[in-house]
Amino acid sequence: MSRDVCVVVTARPSYSRIKSALVALRERSDVRLRLVVAASALLERYGSAVVYIENDGFEIAARVHMVLEGENLAAMTKTTGLGVLELATVFDNLRPDVVVTVADRYETLATAVAAAYMNIPLAHVQGGEVTGSIDEKVRHAVTKLADLHFVSTALARERVIRMGEEPDSVFVTGCPSIDLAAEVLKDPRLSFDPLQKYGGVGATLGLGEGYVVVIQHPVTTEHAAARRHVEETLHAVAALGLPALWFWPNPDAGSDGTSGGIRAFREQHAPRSIHFFKNMAPLDFLRLAYNSRCVVGNSSMGLRECAFLGVPVVNIGSRQAGRERGGNVIDVGYERGPILAAVRQQVARGRHPQDALYGDGQAGSRIAEKLATVALKIEKRLTY
Amino acid sequence: MSRDVCVVVTARPSYSRIKSALVALRERSDVRLRLVVAASALLERYGSAVVYIENDGFEIAARVHMVLEGENLAAMTKTTGLGVLELATVFDNLRPDVVVTVADRYETLATAVAAAYMNIPLAHVQGGEVTGSIDEKVRHAVTKLADLHFVSTALARERVIRMGEEPDSVFVTGCPSIDLAAEVLKDPRLSFDPLQKYGGVGATLGLGEGYVVVIQHPVTTEHAAARRHVEETLHAVAALGLPALWFWPNPDAGSDGTSGGIRAFREQHAPRSIHFFKNMAPLDFLRLAYNSRCVVGNSSMGLRECAFLGVPVVNIGSRQAGRERGGNVIDVGYERGPILAAVRQQVARGRHPQDALYGDGQAGSRIAEKLATVALKIEKRLTY
Amino acid sequence: MSRDVCVVVTARPSYSRIKSALVALRERSDVRLRLVVAASALLERYGSAVVYIENDGFEIAARVHMVLEGENLAAMTKTTGLGVLELATVFDNLRPDVVVTVADRYETLATAVAAAYMNIPLAHVQGGEVTGSIDEKVRHAVTKLADLHFVSTALARERVIRMGEEPDSVFVTGCPSIDLAAEVLKDPRLSFDPLQKYGGVGATLGLGEGYVVVIQHPVTTEHAAARRHVEETLHAVAALGLPALWFWPNPDAGSDGTSGGIRAFREQHAPRSIHFFKNMAPLDFLRLAYNSRCVVGNSSMGLRECAFLGVPVVNIGSRQAGRERGGNVIDVGYERGPILAAVRQQVARGRHPQDALYGDGQAGSRIAEKLATVALKIEKRLTY
Amino acid sequence: MSRDVCVVVTARPSYSRIKSALVALRERSDVRLRLVVAASALLERYGSAVVYIENDGFEIAARVHMVLEGENLAAMTKTTGLGVLELATVFDNLRPDVVVTVADRYETLATAVAAAYMNIPLAHVQGGEVTGSIDEKVRHAVTKLADLHFVSTALARERVIRMGEEPDSVFVTGCPSIDLAAEVLKDPRLSFDPLQKYGGVGATLGLGEGYVVVIQHPVTTEHAAARRHVEETLHAVAALGLPALWFWPNPDAGSDGTSGGIRAFREQHAPRSIHFFKNMAPLDFLRLAYNSRCVVGNSSMGLRECAFLGVPVVNIGSRQAGRERGGNVIDVGYERGPILAAVRQQVARGRHPQDALYGDGQAGSRIAEKLATVALKIEKRLTY
Repeated sequence: MSRDVCVVVTARPSYSRIKSALVALRERSDVRLRLVVAASALLERYGSAVVYIENDGFEIAARVHMVLEGENLAAMTKTTGLGVLELATVFDNLRPDVVVTVADRYETLATAVAAAYMNIPLAHVQGGEVTGSIDEKVRHAVTKLADLHFVSTALARERVIRMGEEPDSVFVTGCPSIDLAAEVLKDPRLSFDPLQKYGGVGATLGLGEGYVVVIQHPVTTEHAAARRHVEETLHAVAALGLPALWFWPNPDAGSDGTSGGIRAFREQHAPRSIHFFKNMAPLDFLRLAYNSRCVVGNSSMGLRECAFLGVPVVNIGSRQAGRERGGNVIDVGYERGPILAAVRQQVARGRHPQDALYGDGQAGSRIAEKLATVALKIEKRLTY
Repeated sequence: MSRDVCVVVTARPSYSRIKSALVALRERSDVRLRLVVAASALLERYGSAVVYIENDGFEIAARVHMVLEGENLAAMTKTTGLGVLELATVFDNLRPDVVVTVADRYETLATAVAAAYMNIPLAHVQGGEVTGSIDEKVRHAVTKLADLHFVSTALARERVIRMGEEPDSVFVTGCPSIDLAAEVLKDPRLSFDPLQKYGGVGATLGLGEGYVVVIQHPVTTEHAAARRHVEETLHAVAALGLPALWFWPNPDAGSDGTSGGIRAFREQHAPRSIHFFKNMAPLDFLRLAYNSRCVVGNSSMGLRECAFLGVPVVNIGSRQAGRERGGNVIDVGYERGPILAAVRQQVARGRHPQDALYGDGQAGSRIAEKLATVALKIEKRLTY
Repeated sequence: MSRDVCVVVTARPSYSRIKSALVALRERSDVRLRLVVAASALLERYGSAVVYIENDGFEIAARVHMVLEGENLAAMTKTTGLGVLELATVFDNLRPDVVVTVADRYETLATAVAAAYMNIPLAHVQGGEVTGSIDEKVRHAVTKLADLHFVSTALARERVIRMGEEPDSVFVTGCPSIDLAAEVLKDPRLSFDPLQKYGGVGATLGLGEGYVVVIQHPVTTEHAAARRHVEETLHAVAALGLPALWFWPNPDAGSDGTSGGIRAFREQHAPRSIHFFKNMAPLDFLRLAYNSRCVVGNSSMGLRECAFLGVPVVNIGSRQAGRERGGNVIDVGYERGPILAAVRQQVARGRHPQDALYGDGQAGSRIAEKLATVALKIEKRLTY
Repeated sequence: MSRDVCVVVTARPSYSRIKSALVALRERSDVRLRLVVAASALLERYGSAVVYIENDGFEIAARVHMVLEGENLAAMTKTTGLGVLELATVFDNLRPDVVVTVADRYETLATAVAAAYMNIPLAHVQGGEVTGSIDEKVRHAVTKLADLHFVSTALARERVIRMGEEPDSVFVTGCPSIDLAAEVLKDPRLSFDPLQKYGGVGATLGLGEGYVVVIQHPVTTEHAAARRHVEETLHAVAALGLPALWFWPNPDAGSDGTSGGIRAFREQHAPRSIHFFKNMAPLDFLRLAYNSRCVVGNSSMGLRECAFLGVPVVNIGSRQAGRERGGNVIDVGYERGPILAAVRQQVARGRHPQDALYGDGQAGSRIAEKLATVALKIEKRLTY
């Protein structure tokens, strides 16, 4: 008898972080994959992850619109409440044997609450890491609701166990996002023209002399400052003298601050070296990053995938504070001067050696194997 | 400048567990108390806590109906989602400086999520305890969302710290429910006739020769068995030969199993020694317990207040498993035989010595003092 | 190419009023029936319509728990809001060609709003009737959102057209509930013992000398009076001298008033001639009504099915005010005296002639035919 | 004793259509105004009506975020469901004597359902009009839920009565939006520089030689075509040879189509004669319209306020189809050619005579008078 494994994907980056596990689950005869696509993964404004999911041939068991609009925290909170409400109905109809939630975006807690309260065993991917902002609270709260933990590093496993989880429920699988990076390394050439393939807006750029990639998200609990933060990065990048490929942020509260800052900067400065993208197929994005001179911003992919790819990274601000990082990362604050200096230093230095800190490229199949075979239960108790 | 402290009360037992802190908060000039009454605290079927709250002279800042009907887990989950949605609006309108959530009922997580996501500092009362069932997941998830922790015991404090919370955010205040018990001890006489004052249904009883008190909740994750469990207790209590005052359960998923079991038993057996109550003012309830020969069931008050009151307790099943207990408690399983034997043993033994395990009666003022004066923040990070 | 017809059933009585159409839809090769079961149709407390639906062999495309608990109007309102929210997701996933909503219970407006706003053609069954209470507002609001109207009577059609609907969108099909009555007339014998088959609580009755059937719902906008109303009927029925088979009410706001009244009456008076049922299979219920001496209360089946069956009816209060009725009905107010007198008069009179006022027994197949074949559109405009 | 009148404002244009009534209500000693601001009225992206409301000195009793994000109908539907849910809580806490809902935007039905279901008398402003699209269904459904009707024209009153409403519940007050127009006529000079005062993006324009104003909303039920529609208007306006002041659309489903079309056009064509505004204080907006050579688009203000102001209007497409109009309007389809020709014709013709079709400027005080003094009731019945 096969097991029904329900994975809830709520955002473009979450899809990248679980895709290799989805592929592995789909290939197993002892698993029936039930994929739920929800929240910003359904929205064009945030990159329409759903289109990539369908193009990758996955069948979608349910779609759930749940993102509230607004440049405020109430919208983020209500999105989560709506997620709990609606995922309850989805789980009540699908009746899966286990539910999987990915990482630490705010809406992943909705998946966790709905599954835990419905007495469905919950698996969490990427627990045990440490960062700044609301993600930190979300991640560990999900850990306390989860019955299975698929973590990226040995240190993450140790932390989850110290939080009181049973050791035999915590598995170091590596992060599935590294699986995509490993796939890219098989043929890392930039075989497409990003502007031609993905459109976007802004300057028309030639990438032959090298370029940088920028992706900067608002830091939720510093919400009001989001606009100022992104402006500093914009000034630094505009002054760099290399083309920049810039990606719009996630739908967190504050993204309107970041988006508004970008929009205003474009109106005022019409920067001639920056092109803006909404989204990109995950493998294309990794190829783009691999071939860049530097990745700039505060995305966790700078610490995770870029470690494996050996790409130099300038990590800005507090969003990744506390997260493990390799030698490819320089940390800076929010001021344009230090940002620019650090980018120049990384561009001058060139590629770093591969670092398997967050995984060796086999996370997806390990996660699928565990989901298909480990004993499932919903009762647990603090171990001390 | 005074601080706005918002306390969310969602159930009759939660009110008992926070009332002394509410009184202390109301008396402070440096605090403005904003009381939100929600969920089953508004429902007649679950004892209309709101009536007691109003009778105690508290002003209610907002009321939120959010309990879904149904003998199923989806209802419990959706209640929580609805709570997140609606409390977001309440907090958005009240804009408190700090929010307080009490204990570990499933809907308390809604308060915690709404406050944490709205960037409002969250205080949690009664973290760090260990029990069975979904409460266990809820309690520790709330801990990971909370910024201040008011715990009942030194062991609870140690656990919260081991989970990665900063030691200076965790305060051993004792449990406010013990404050009510201490108040009762000043004059513990049973000065009212419960049947006359509170009505209820069932046998007309004389309490002169002693009586027992029964309160048994469904154990959520054993939902289907709730009816069978309560039937065993009903048979044991009916066979005891002492009058029994029985209280209806909480609105958890499965309470229809428990309630249905009680209703069917009444139809079939018309028990002549049991009277059923929906609810009682907290102090009256404690006086009733104090003067009983034994408290039977699975309420946490058997371990908490009854330890302080020295009342013998027979604790049934897994609901309180893992929770600290004093010498006044005998634990038994769900079978009528051992239940009956244990009750007889406790009735024969008589009163136990006072045990301050869960507090010394000053918890309310300690909690109010901390809420009024400690530095408030929303950023935290795992301590390891 | 077949048409996807989505029918939303939200309550036990709604199922009876649409069942024959569901059967006819299921049998058509040009239709794919997508049945959504929601609200009180899922709840044991309100008769578990879902069990009958499954026993009748229907496949359920989605289940949606949405009933809020509480003896108040806020619960009713929020149930409707939740229905709009959740049915949006259901329709977004099922993508039906047309949605069907039945009659005028408050939650039917949720189906209507969700379908109309999703640009899905909406068919309404039983518009154009006139009654008291909130149902009146609901029914006509649904008419203004609907694109197809399947009405029971010529007068109903005239009213719908006068409200500004296009005449060619309004079809007199008769009411599908009459189809069940017609089926019962093929063999109307009471071939089962209701107490044995359906359990229930209350007096053990012999039905050989005749009996009456009672079903009384709270009148929403007179909410506070619900308890008093039902007490009057209870006294009248207890005084009748014939056995009474009494059915519990719907989950409207106020049903706790009615239910509470019944429960209190049972505690105080232990009526020896009344047996209480939660629910019954629709055909069994109609056979029971057919063989009764009189149907008492305020259910619309007294005016509809009982007209066709020729059963004498005593209709109490304002709930059916304005609805067309045949010669089988005597209307009375809420006082026990006139109720008792009217029941005695009807019992003495005996069976009435068949009256096809609400249909000839072919409504289901007519509705299915129209749903399968008429041109569907979503644009309409007031005709004047 | 004063009456609590609760007005729910959900969008920028709704505020303009009710403001004079709010002012009149605030001034009455027999009324306590309770203003609820919700939905897009709270969002910066849609013009932050809330800022104008606060600047006009109104106290806000509750704010409710409820707009779902997304270029789809599910978002619109869920916004409405969320509105019903949350307004139930708001009304449950405020307990007003009467609730007022304005016009026919989709979310106004949420106010209507919540009030009607809570047994609160509901007043509807601007019923009885006829247009295209979903607004048509919404408007008349609200009429069937409302107890008081404040309509703009005699024809509207006749229609409401023909729909079955009691004649003495329907009052021709005129539209409050005309009151603002009348206020503007006292001093209609354009005393500010719109670009300087309101910023916006796009070409820097001199307005001395005349200009046109454009405001075009997506037509919900033609959702997919929204982008194509706006492009035609953009081409026509760009070809006109007069400066154009263009206002962004409402947050209906499809607004992303319209907004996306505008954004893409700006990227490709960088139109040198168009400046884009998000929003403007209502009186400033009317002064701008008054002094324009023509108003272009599909806003109802072209038919309403512009009739009173005598401003020439080119009305595009089906959105206002069926609505009464004066001699100042030329109707055209969605093609750029006829749009351009009609605008040129209107520009050449110049100002029209004043037409009091939608009101004489006293609507606000009439509505306030009725709300303060008419008998309130919640029971009604179809008049035929």
